[in-house]
Amino acid sequence: MKSQRVTVIGGGGKMGRFFTQWLTALGHHISILEQNDWERAEHLLADADLVLICVPIECSLEVIRKVTQYLSPTTALADITSIKAPAVRAMLKHHTGPVMGLHPMFGPSIQSLVSQIVVVCPGRGDESFQWLLNLIEGEGGKVMFSTPEEHDQMMVVIQAIRHFATLSFGIFLSEEKIDIRRSLDFSSPVYRQQIDIVNRLLTQSASLVVDIMLATQERREAIVRLANTYSRLAQLVMQGDREALLLELKAVNSFFAEEIACNFRESTCFINNLIPLKESLIKNRRVAENTEGIFHEYSL
Amino acid sequence: MKSQRVTVIGGGGKMGRFFTQWLTALGHHISILEQNDWERAEHLLADADLVLICVPIECSLEVIRKVTQYLSPTTALADITSIKAPAVRAMLKHHTGPVMGLHPMFGPSIQSLVSQIVVVCPGRGDESFQWLLNLIEGEGGKVMFSTPEEHDQMMVVIQAIRHFATLSFGIFLSEEKIDIRRSLDFSSPVYRQQIDIVNRLLTQSASLVVDIMLATQERREAIVRLANTYSRLAQLVMQGDREALLLELKAVNSFFAEEIACNFRESTCFINNLIPLKESLIKNRRVAENTEGIFHEYSL
Repeated sequence: MKSQRVTVIGGGGKMGRFFTQWLTALGHHISILEQNDWERAEHLLADADLVLICVPIECSLEVIRKVTQYLSPTTALADITSIKAPAVRAMLKHHTGPVMGLHPMFGPSIQSLVSQIVVVCPGRGDESFQWLLNLIEGEGGKVMFSTPEEHDQMMVVIQAIRHFATLSFGIFLSEEKIDIRRSLDFSSPVYRQQIDIVNRLLTQSASLVVDIMLATQERREAIVRLANTYSRLAQLVMQGDREALLLELKAVNSFFAEEIACNFRESTCFINNLIPLKESLIKNRRVAENTEGIFHEYSL
Repeated sequence: MKSQRVTVIGGGGKMGRFFTQWLTALGHHISILEQNDWERAEHLLADADLVLICVPIECSLEVIRKVTQYLSPTTALADITSIKAPAVRAMLKHHTGPVMGLHPMFGPSIQSLVSQIVVVCPGRGDESFQWLLNLIEGEGGKVMFSTPEEHDQMMVVIQAIRHFATLSFGIFLSEEKIDIRRSLDFSSPVYRQQIDIVNRLLTQSASLVVDIMLATQERREAIVRLANTYSRLAQLVMQGDREALLLELKAVNSFFAEEIACNFRESTCFINNLIPLKESLIKNRRVAENTEGIFHEYSL
């Protein structure tokens, strides 16, 4: 394949660096345009085959507007923010050439693309991006097509709601001053999994986590609905309303029934396979504790 | 080791059957006393070396009172309910012989005891239970000593709070009519893990799940506090109070800091090892879907 000229906007950020390193390693020519490089924008953008926008979510629309004035109509334009409808709309509006919304469902700490998902929201001129999608799939990644609207709706749950629930659980444990280490001694593998999930979220950039929750009115409202569900159920618990809780469980059971059927087997196998793995990790814990921790951003 | 005469109270229930089968396979003489067997209680209890109470949580105190009148002072008495302080207190009060509270942190569907935890709350005459603890450890299980009070406090979080949080998350997804299957297509491994956790909880006995949440006033109050935490944070989200949320994250981060340090490495390795496993499981999904599902109770 012909070597591509790619300009990564925000190439100094964590995901920007990830794509820069990955594409460079594959033999492409990468330029980086950072916050203070706009005077060189013409030079960095006019000849690019692909411009990839990797900037924080709250700047993405402004950066799209700024970038597009320098692009040639043949340049392919893509962004990687976690909200796709407004970004794809803005790219289509301000750029006449090929446009694609991307959302890599992983963070910059991954070791390989194997089994990692990239959501793809086609805008215009898909064929200009085919080399990139082929690279992702060639490295074992998975390309998932979606409309921007479906993507955004799914991310309300997959990102905003889940982060909120995980974070709140962690905050509750800290408010209650639970001895986490001791609680893990008592715990079944599933509790350990849940503490892991809290820990992973806490190793993320705090502002990214907060911005993902706050990003849209739709997300904020969904979070409030989630809190209302918790409150409603907590009231049933406080009243000791066993019958009402059993009815709730019955309803949710039938909703999940199909998923449970094929998932339970997976999950059992999953857990059974985790135990020996965890065992060896715990044995190595003392070693890990004596090593200074270096944290990476991790897949949301 | 000399073969022991063990009477399992509630030996027809799921955990009762588990212990019956396990101890029988190891060559011990097991008798079962079920709800309608009380007229044979004298015969079933008087000569037992160990009486193991495996009845639903809400009957355990009554059953302890009933059982103890038939015991000889040399009979070892243990129970396996998930609330230990009142059970151990009642056993010590009504029985003059050896007493031990046990809480197996697993469900009856486990394939082996390897890495499974049994919490042990010593009451009196520990040496009479040593053969049982040796058996558990001999099969790869882990014995965790605790006071009944510490155990109960830990279980507020490990069982009641966690079940409530998981269940509420599942109920919210059903209220929002999320297409779970489709959402998994988009998802990172961590989201898949969380859906698994919901699924696993839903395969449990509904009344066991509800009773675990309702069991004590302490648990109910903790659940209400959890709901309050969610509400408080949801309000910050609704107000778009980025600064306050960042402060919350900062506080919880320093609370979890120590745990994160040694856990993140575990967790990353964990996730990296899960991916290939999940892949092969997903490939087998079609097969699983065409097979009728048989569900087992699973470790809480």
